[in-house]
Amino acid sequence: MPTYKKRDFPVSEIRRFLEPGPVVLVSSAWKNERNVMTMGWHMVIEFVPSLVGCLISSSNHSHELVRRSKECVINIPTVDLAATVVGIGNCSGASVDKFEKFKLKTAPAQEVGAPLIADCYANLECRLSDARLREKYDLFIFEVVKAHAPATPKYPKTIHYRGDGVFMVAGRSLNLRHKFRPGML
Amino acid sequence: MPTYKKRDFPVSEIRRFLEPGPVVLVSSAWKNERNVMTMGWHMVIEFVPSLVGCLISSSNHSHELVRRSKECVINIPTVDLAATVVGIGNCSGASVDKFEKFKLKTAPAQEVGAPLIADCYANLECRLSDARLREKYDLFIFEVVKAHAPATPKYPKTIHYRGDGVFMVAGRSLNLRHKFRPGML
Repeated sequence: MPTYKKRDFPVSEIRRFLEPGPVVLVSSAWKNERNVMTMGWHMVIEFVPSLVGCLISSSNHSHELVRRSKECVINIPTVDLAATVVGIGNCSGASVDKFEKFKLKTAPAQEVGAPLIADCYANLECRLSDARLREKYDLFIFEVVKAHAPATPKYPKTIHYRGDGVFMVAGRSLNLRHKFRPGML
Repeated sequence: MPTYKKRDFPVSEIRRFLEPGPVVLVSSAWKNERNVMTMGWHMVIEFVPSLVGCLISSSNHSHELVRRSKECVINIPTVDLAATVVGIGNCSGASVDKFEKFKLKTAPAQEVGAPLIADCYANLECRLSDARLREKYDLFIFEVVKAHAPATPKYPKTIHYRGDGVFMVAGRSLNLRHKFRPGML
């Protein structure tokens, strides 16, 4: 398991991690309870403020913890954690402490109550910004208020879910910077 | 340029293409105008109906065409189209016909007025389902009403934008089906 030496990362630039579409782990806490879930449905919505849309189904135990605390942490795992990511998605925090079950190393967040998952490549501390679509779609819009990421590797080997038990592992980088008009980067 | 032999694809299963997070091309049409834009911010919201959230900035010429027609097509390009994807993102449909400029082969859609981009791996015909977040965030929620994809290759080499001119190209597949609880696939 790699150990990442993380530092503050600008919240307005977290698209670097989320826009490629990795599956993520969402940690949450409310009163004496904490939980973590696997999430594949999310999108960047704005740079400043740093907004992210997340679908957290009301059938997930985490939904209630996020709804009440109005906070969460989006943790970005890499391929070495793939089996853990599947395991976390397979069970419910209603009946098991997933942090213990999967021996997740945690660290305290700075701005929210939910824990950071230390073994993940990056951690995004989030506060609920807009819950207008929660009832209809289970869709939360969060503001990323603090981000932690290592300087290296710059491009993590994230995993991207295709459904049916199959992931795509992040492949090579393709730098087309020279083809962009300045201002479009 | 590969030529894809496409057939109907179940709209409830299009997460296979969108959940991994590729950059896509959105085509639209309204009255005598048509356009295509590059889009990186989208998410799956529901299987049935097949809902997708898309951020189409009001600074994009396409915003108005989509808003008025209440339709679009989400086209999924692969790495061979990377330079075209960047080129499309670099210019505005307000001043150029991008279909001509980039010699895009099109085909008529079945359910919407916007054209399919034939060179793309898959095409998702979309109707506007919820515009509640359009004014505040430029966020459209579409229902995919018809999907076209080839049987092979099953897993396209899509491109995933990291910002700053750098794409991640879809890498190897990791099949963890055996680790999933039935019903969680």
